Amino acid sequence: MSDAVAQLRARVRPDIRAMRGYVPGEQRNRAVKLNTNESPWGPAPGVHRALAELDADALRQYPDPACTALRAAAGRRYGLDPASILVGNGSDDCLTIIYRSLLRPGDRVAVPHPTYGLYDQLAAIQGADLVHLPWANGWALPDLSATDARLVLLANPNNPSGTVVPRAQLCALARSLDGILVVDEAYIDFADEPAGMLPLLAELPNLIVLRTFSKSFGLAAARLGLLFAHPALVCEFAKVKDSYNVGVAPQAMGLAALADPEHHAATVERIRTGRRELERFCAERAWELPPTQANFVLCRLGAQAGATMRALRERDILVRWFDTPELRSYLRISVGTPEQQAALFAALADCGP
Amino acid sequence: MSDAVAQLRARVRPDIRAMRGYVPGEQRNRAVKLNTNESPWGPAPGVHRALAELDADALRQYPDPACTALRAAAGRRYGLDPASILVGNGSDDCLTIIYRSLLRPGDRVAVPHPTYGLYDQLAAIQGADLVHLPWANGWALPDLSATDARLVLLANPNNPSGTVVPRAQLCALARSLDGILVVDEAYIDFADEPAGMLPLLAELPNLIVLRTFSKSFGLAAARLGLLFAHPALVCEFAKVKDSYNVGVAPQAMGLAALADPEHHAATVERIRTGRRELERFCAERAWELPPTQANFVLCRLGAQAGATMRALRERDILVRWFDTPELRSYLRISVGTPEQQAALFAALADCGP
Repeated sequence: MSDAVAQLRARVRPDIRAMRGYVPGEQRNRAVKLNTNESPWGPAPGVHRALAELDADALRQYPDPACTALRAAAGRRYGLDPASILVGNGSDDCLTIIYRSLLRPGDRVAVPHPTYGLYDQLAAIQGADLVHLPWANGWALPDLSATDARLVLLANPNNPSGTVVPRAQLCALARSLDGILVVDEAYIDFADEPAGMLPLLAELPNLIVLRTFSKSFGLAAARLGLLFAHPALVCEFAKVKDSYNVGVAPQAMGLAALADPEHHAATVERIRTGRRELERFCAERAWELPPTQANFVLCRLGAQAGATMRALRERDILVRWFDTPELRSYLRISVGTPEQQAALFAALADCGP
Repeated sequence: MSDAVAQLRARVRPDIRAMRGYVPGEQRNRAVKLNTNESPWGPAPGVHRALAELDADALRQYPDPACTALRAAAGRRYGLDPASILVGNGSDDCLTIIYRSLLRPGDRVAVPHPTYGLYDQLAAIQGADLVHLPWANGWALPDLSATDARLVLLANPNNPSGTVVPRAQLCALARSLDGILVVDEAYIDFADEPAGMLPLLAELPNLIVLRTFSKSFGLAAARLGLLFAHPALVCEFAKVKDSYNVGVAPQAMGLAALADPEHHAATVERIRTGRRELERFCAERAWELPPTQANFVLCRLGAQAGATMRALRERDILVRWFDTPELRSYLRISVGTPEQQAALFAALADCGP
């Protein structure tokens, strides 16, 4: 590295310089893509119409910074006051807003481990002190209240395990915390109790719930997430978000998606059916997997997991393998279409352990 | 405020709580909207086609996190290596990424004053120490190098004055700074030298240039901004941005907009024509205005400025008035279509000072 570049990098925060660069999940055309938990089916047909209807006048103007229509529609859908809803550029943006609003350098964040890696990365960017508590045996909730953290996060269903923490335990956790509890419900629509924590929002003022359009709504392309919290918190978060954080196209897509609950319900049902098929296949081969309520399974292949991921990749089938001590004997496989799953099963019969 | 709400708010950072809430610029249907410097004309026709062509498969999948195609197209357009380009969810997102990457609480940010208000707001969110140096007489550049700031920002053309700092002065400033210089060129396409600072990027490693699709490209709805910097800085910024910060729709819109340079050039020419008409109108009424190279004028109406803004609003014509000591005798008026400007002139003849 030249002196000039070294000098230039020295102007960046040392903790950012020390971070590992982001490695994007592999995107490959025409591959059977079961590595990022997208929906194998697209969004409601109305979404295309909504996009096609955006005219020059809609496109040249700034979007509604408050996402008024989308928050109203989400409020009706979930039976909540729109004042308790904030819309993000994906739920990643909602998470970023939460971290920036609540945490100063040195403040503590606690998460069960392993879970969605972004919780760690945002802590590093914010200069926060991160505490990992390993999931207990069988992916049971560790005692996160003992960490004295200002912010506790968990995904429910959890990623990458697909496991669910019962609602009563989450209530007890929220009540026992002095800090804020974020329950990231990206995958809750696939779970046995899809209402998740939203019905408890009114009684638990320190609870924040996140939802996304990237999974069950088939709209990962749109970047659209919802944050549900006490209106007093939403007011503070609104100061921190970029003013125009959600464009006109994603707002229109979200409205169209919410307007078609039948398409959504049918997609969820197809994915749950596909999940059962994946579970059956794993059971036949005696591959253990935690009980999943998400649109993916985490199956234990043992020492061959990494090699199997690579062998599948050579066959243009992408699944997720995490090269960490806790996870390197597993593959995380998203539910696909019946055709994609048939291709996966055939390939695994050929190259699996 | 109830005790429960007070307790809840106490969990938010005190500096965020102390911030004023964001007040969105007024959006009103069917108004003559000359208050937010949007283009009065829409984007290239190919933008609509690009949106209409997004199929279920494109929408259900995550966007390219690196915006590879759009960066390649922007690299060709501006004659730069795509490795020196980062795409943001609007240039507001680019600014947020810069602040989070470079600044820890207490680090110093310096800006000339008055300018785009977001520079201040992001400093507050990041806990940075903000220094305002007033523009010298005639909107001339103050000595920002004397501030010893880690980050210096200015908009060129400046918002809300429309004035331009000559390139040689910006070069000298970049060279004299130990920190990073951000030149926000949101309005540069309307200026006499639209190349701006991009040709100097290679010789000034501490220079960051920002561009946006919200003004001359007629795509404020899309939320799309470009950050140009040394590749070593871009690498660090890529760690801090949300992985999927730019959706599939804005990436497609940006590509389509860049593919039609004729539409862009024609729009810029129409706006420059409209600006001359606005300037003529102000000159006839002897309203002073700084020499503008943007798509707006800042005209001095004196003590009647606020009342005039309100009188115009009653006639469904929106212009911008800033209620601050430096600016309250001015109105900022965006260039509109000939029809919009005719309506404005008629209304001002009726209700202006």
